[in-house]
Amino acid sequence: MTGTTHSPQELAERTLEFVREHVYPVEREIIVDGRPMDDALRLELQKKAKAAGVFGPLSPVEHGGLGLDTRAQAFVLEAAGTSLIGPLALNCWAPDDGNIHLLAHAATPEQKRRYLAPLASGEVRSSIAMTEPAPGAGSDPSMLRTVAEETDSGWVINGEKHFTTGADGAAFTIVVAATADGPTMFLVDQDNPGLRVGRRMPTLDHSVPGGHCAVTFADCHVGDDAVLGAVGKGMEYASVRLAPSRLTFCMNWLGLAVRAQELAARHINGRQAFGARIADHGMAQAHIADNEIDITAARALIHGTAAIIDAEGAASSAARHSASVTKTFVSEAVWRVLDRAVQLHGGLGVCEDHLVARFLVEARAFRIYEGPSEVLRWSIARRVLRAHQ
Amino acid sequence: MTGTTHSPQELAERTLEFVREHVYPVEREIIVDGRPMDDALRLELQKKAKAAGVFGPLSPVEHGGLGLDTRAQAFVLEAAGTSLIGPLALNCWAPDDGNIHLLAHAATPEQKRRYLAPLASGEVRSSIAMTEPAPGAGSDPSMLRTVAEETDSGWVINGEKHFTTGADGAAFTIVVAATADGPTMFLVDQDNPGLRVGRRMPTLDHSVPGGHCAVTFADCHVGDDAVLGAVGKGMEYASVRLAPSRLTFCMNWLGLAVRAQELAARHINGRQAFGARIADHGMAQAHIADNEIDITAARALIHGTAAIIDAEGAASSAARHSASVTKTFVSEAVWRVLDRAVQLHGGLGVCEDHLVARFLVEARAFRIYEGPSEVLRWSIARRVLRAHQ
Amino acid sequence: MTGTTHSPQELAERTLEFVREHVYPVEREIIVDGRPMDDALRLELQKKAKAAGVFGPLSPVEHGGLGLDTRAQAFVLEAAGTSLIGPLALNCWAPDDGNIHLLAHAATPEQKRRYLAPLASGEVRSSIAMTEPAPGAGSDPSMLRTVAEETDSGWVINGEKHFTTGADGAAFTIVVAATADGPTMFLVDQDNPGLRVGRRMPTLDHSVPGGHCAVTFADCHVGDDAVLGAVGKGMEYASVRLAPSRLTFCMNWLGLAVRAQELAARHINGRQAFGARIADHGMAQAHIADNEIDITAARALIHGTAAIIDAEGAASSAARHSASVTKTFVSEAVWRVLDRAVQLHGGLGVCEDHLVARFLVEARAFRIYEGPSEVLRWSIARRVLRAHQ
Amino acid sequence: MTGTTHSPQELAERTLEFVREHVYPVEREIIVDGRPMDDALRLELQKKAKAAGVFGPLSPVEHGGLGLDTRAQAFVLEAAGTSLIGPLALNCWAPDDGNIHLLAHAATPEQKRRYLAPLASGEVRSSIAMTEPAPGAGSDPSMLRTVAEETDSGWVINGEKHFTTGADGAAFTIVVAATADGPTMFLVDQDNPGLRVGRRMPTLDHSVPGGHCAVTFADCHVGDDAVLGAVGKGMEYASVRLAPSRLTFCMNWLGLAVRAQELAARHINGRQAFGARIADHGMAQAHIADNEIDITAARALIHGTAAIIDAEGAASSAARHSASVTKTFVSEAVWRVLDRAVQLHGGLGVCEDHLVARFLVEARAFRIYEGPSEVLRWSIARRVLRAHQ
Repeated sequence: MTGTTHSPQELAERTLEFVREHVYPVEREIIVDGRPMDDALRLELQKKAKAAGVFGPLSPVEHGGLGLDTRAQAFVLEAAGTSLIGPLALNCWAPDDGNIHLLAHAATPEQKRRYLAPLASGEVRSSIAMTEPAPGAGSDPSMLRTVAEETDSGWVINGEKHFTTGADGAAFTIVVAATADGPTMFLVDQDNPGLRVGRRMPTLDHSVPGGHCAVTFADCHVGDDAVLGAVGKGMEYASVRLAPSRLTFCMNWLGLAVRAQELAARHINGRQAFGARIADHGMAQAHIADNEIDITAARALIHGTAAIIDAEGAASSAARHSASVTKTFVSEAVWRVLDRAVQLHGGLGVCEDHLVARFLVEARAFRIYEGPSEVLRWSIARRVLRAHQ
Repeated sequence: MTGTTHSPQELAERTLEFVREHVYPVEREIIVDGRPMDDALRLELQKKAKAAGVFGPLSPVEHGGLGLDTRAQAFVLEAAGTSLIGPLALNCWAPDDGNIHLLAHAATPEQKRRYLAPLASGEVRSSIAMTEPAPGAGSDPSMLRTVAEETDSGWVINGEKHFTTGADGAAFTIVVAATADGPTMFLVDQDNPGLRVGRRMPTLDHSVPGGHCAVTFADCHVGDDAVLGAVGKGMEYASVRLAPSRLTFCMNWLGLAVRAQELAARHINGRQAFGARIADHGMAQAHIADNEIDITAARALIHGTAAIIDAEGAASSAARHSASVTKTFVSEAVWRVLDRAVQLHGGLGVCEDHLVARFLVEARAFRIYEGPSEVLRWSIARRVLRAHQ
Repeated sequence: MTGTTHSPQELAERTLEFVREHVYPVEREIIVDGRPMDDALRLELQKKAKAAGVFGPLSPVEHGGLGLDTRAQAFVLEAAGTSLIGPLALNCWAPDDGNIHLLAHAATPEQKRRYLAPLASGEVRSSIAMTEPAPGAGSDPSMLRTVAEETDSGWVINGEKHFTTGADGAAFTIVVAATADGPTMFLVDQDNPGLRVGRRMPTLDHSVPGGHCAVTFADCHVGDDAVLGAVGKGMEYASVRLAPSRLTFCMNWLGLAVRAQELAARHINGRQAFGARIADHGMAQAHIADNEIDITAARALIHGTAAIIDAEGAASSAARHSASVTKTFVSEAVWRVLDRAVQLHGGLGVCEDHLVARFLVEARAFRIYEGPSEVLRWSIARRVLRAHQ
Repeated sequence: MTGTTHSPQELAERTLEFVREHVYPVEREIIVDGRPMDDALRLELQKKAKAAGVFGPLSPVEHGGLGLDTRAQAFVLEAAGTSLIGPLALNCWAPDDGNIHLLAHAATPEQKRRYLAPLASGEVRSSIAMTEPAPGAGSDPSMLRTVAEETDSGWVINGEKHFTTGADGAAFTIVVAATADGPTMFLVDQDNPGLRVGRRMPTLDHSVPGGHCAVTFADCHVGDDAVLGAVGKGMEYASVRLAPSRLTFCMNWLGLAVRAQELAARHINGRQAFGARIADHGMAQAHIADNEIDITAARALIHGTAAIIDAEGAASSAARHSASVTKTFVSEAVWRVLDRAVQLHGGLGVCEDHLVARFLVEARAFRIYEGPSEVLRWSIARRVLRAHQ
């Protein structure tokens, strides 16, 4: 099942030990003391993760990864996700997680050598440029306005993107652009003079190194070898990327919910009010129980979707449907868990001295990125309704 | 994994075919036309289930059952549960489901011969007498007031029970009573003159043959061989019974949610309002999607708990915790699904011409029987809080 | 403000005394002992309500009513609604409530004499025939298929209605039918040979005398004097009827929520479990608090809408918008309150020995009748969105 | 009803015009461009509010305020609250709102001259020091550990406070401390050498000038004239302060919900996705309708509680109960509205280019400050349960 001799549970246990020892202290420095999250820090943490044998749960063995199947990833990524920066340390955070998966699936051998290898090993970061400002493509990919025109020597890309995750400091960007043969993905080196990384958008989440940036493609010349996989397959590749990307998102965020529950349980075990431990008050217990239920259901959905991906492939209709259901539930369940954890902390819960305050703010985007709940519900409903026609 | 040569999925498919062909029509007669649900009908349906090879998913092979492990049961019972009376046809409905499990676990060989064999084969029905009117044992088993006193020739039981599920027409009742050595379970034949089945309580759910009855034990003499298993183990046995009983409950009711979703989807696919099919209105789609999410999460939790029961045993702490989480979520999720299905039917949804109206009313008790959500949340929270002390 | 010398609060207090003394005992006989709710009983209760000076809160003074404005009605109807049959006793229950309002608004003097007078005084009951089986008018009135054709001597009505509230035993029916000049309302005597009351539909709610019936109009001849108000004004009149009808519905059902809260609070004040009164357990307290919040918010919305109706008229855009908001919230809040009251009763809560079980089942239709929540949300949203264009 | 010749609605309209013209532009500079919110800015805005005739809705006429009753305040404060900094401009924001009320109620004439007059006129800001770090008084005031000891010349206060709202830059602090005669409030000048304002706590909300600070009282000497009102009346005064303080909180935050709904409605009216305006998608409409329902219910509760305060006094049991119910509902409803407004903005909703992102983060504390929802639910339930004993 895995490329190692360890069971997924053992790897998860090892991961948990690693993040507790090496990542939690750094996380606290970042959130409480304002230490900046930069690439130097990322590389330092990744080095330690390699030493601990937990680096690269999404990366193929040949690129220094653990070569795990999706079910095994679920165990490890949840453990990594108990810290906001754990997934960075293991190299399983957006957008690199999805880009690794996509490149492993679609890249040419040469592209794998040039882009996948350094990305999977953590040497470089990458970026993904899909979303466009209105009236371009937001949730609806059919509204794509960035264009790539074929030339004698390759392609010229023009267009505006925003929410380009990880763009600041990335080594390359995967951009989707319309061509005469349909939407196509291109690999553009970040130092291409036609690619300009604009401002970091002031999003509520801060945990992505490289941020979410505005990016302009202005007469951006690339060669034919910049076409990721094949021309006109941009939507297919986006689809291939989507289910795993949504699922790793869920795994990571579930970890954060688990951590928040632990922090909240400890907090109320140690506090008194109105003549009893807060942990003995029924309304506090209800929050703890609801958290446990949400966490357990989220985990069950994640493992179920992982099994489907492993059995039927990430691009199968069953996998995509299951990932949509799971992403909708998990993103909302994690939000509820974090919100209750804040509430259980009382006034301290809205104070960034306590991690849960920052966790909540970071997590808000999860219900929107990679498909807002409303768009996912729409697609879920249509599949169900078609099946009963 | 199973006592048959079929995979659980195949058995579930076969079960679904069976209930669609033989059970759905009878269900409609019962709900819409008022045909009474009696033992003659039950036996007729069970005969057909045996012919279809789907009878006895909870019963051991040696007693004519399918000998399934819990994971396999999950597939089959969901399929059976798509009809309110499907579980009766397969002999996997309360309270016989839990009683079969309990007898298989705790009964002496002679008790198995005398009680388990005819119960597992569907020849007779049984009853369970735990709950007592105030100030006796409701949700809190420590308040038990029914008493069994040892005599020279056996025991004399005295006390009042109510919500004695299946009592009217049962062949025997498992009753829990306090003894000098602690709570003890007794097997009492229904024709024992000391056992009097009182009125059927007018509960909202009607689908249990034998109803929920008031039962009086008045100087009810039984022999030593009436002690189920061993004296003083009543709480332990109740615990053994509880997790599987909660879980089969969940499996059956999940089936009903699946059916309601199907009925609702078909209904709105075929209706127009405000210039479009109802199925094309976003708020109707939201209900369908929420149902799909609730159903999928419920199923994932059930299968997860089933795997724990198979791996660690039904009485293990992990199994009991997981069953509590699952029962709480599933009972509430099924209620939401049925409620949305009613709403999607509009006015027809509150009219018993349409099955969803009856489904909703039947299901209300599920959030209370076998542990109200509040008591389960309390026990869930305490386990979590202890783990973080 | 009122046609009496009493303040609305005093009238409400008097109403509460009346229903407690004369109506609650009868209600218990009906729900627990199965006494049928028939017109003899209704008239007996109404006679007592007249004696108590609380009869007719919706009726004009000239027809023996209390002549209250809408704000005063809110106090009195909530008190009446604390029993399922209290509103019948006071003559303020559907569909007569809305029909009284409609006739007072739209009827000719002769129609008022013939139809409004005996209705307002409780001498007779009435019926309203709007909804049609598919593909006719359900929630969407534009799908109206019942037709009235003008003849030399009047009109001939043909069509099928269902959910015709109160039809069995009513003295007359207000039916809406399409004419060449648009939807028109007609007053049809129940003994008209062209009107046939079919079966009572088996709806979950039983508290409307006369039930919800299938009604057929087959060459139903009526004179010109059967046109309610004016030809072609059916939609306008429906609109006039709608806001007050929705609001009186809310007032009555709020009363039931108040009663359920009282029953639940008393129940848990008097019961022990797990070493304490249930009333001392935090999760039970949370239910009580949530009920109190829902009840208080519902009441505030009702009084707010009543003030708008009194100030701007029942057919004003502000009144209709506010009534839509209020009906959506109150119908859902009442449902939540009743559901929690059931849960607080434990197993007894799903047993019709206790009123809350029946209350819950009766109330389910409230979220659908007079406009399903989804249709109301749609109309609310469109008004808001238009205001921000 | 008011100290002006304007109706509350007219004043609210005028207030809305004022904040739209003078406050919204500044708010955008603060949130989007990072302009600091300082006292210079506050005074500039307050000067403009005075010129517009809308300054001081909570202040007595004799101190330059509008002299409004609570019902009139509800209209004006909602309008002011449509901007995060509108209430500052009008001088009706925490903690000065509650302090003005408290001083008007309890201060001696000399204290009014010295503290209330400059506070009511906006000349200075104030602070309130109640909450203490564990194991001191958090939600439970009985755990008070700050102590004031009587000396020959006055009092010496010692203790630690945190969440001392507005402390940084305030002119004075109202501190509650235990004395031999019970909890007592003291007025301490901020330049008292025994009062040390520590760090601003890194709370999620930034809109309070002066922040929430750690404050130490170390041998803080004050005279007898520093006792606010009378010795031993600290709890009574806290109670007097509480209901109005909770209610003005609700009024202000309701305004923010109204603004977010407006921003969301405009946003989706102007955006396309999946072949239609987002405003035409049913799931977006559901959010808009739910927002409208929440806003309308919140407003109805606020006005209802305001009427009770005006009729029975802010310290009456009815007012305190109603304020608890209202604060619980409104804080949760506002949160839901802001959350849906974020969701309706899609990715832009979590980007501080758009105000709703910041609104959401600011609002999180509202469900905790001035009484966490759980503590309020507990007190609500106990009152209800006592009433039904």
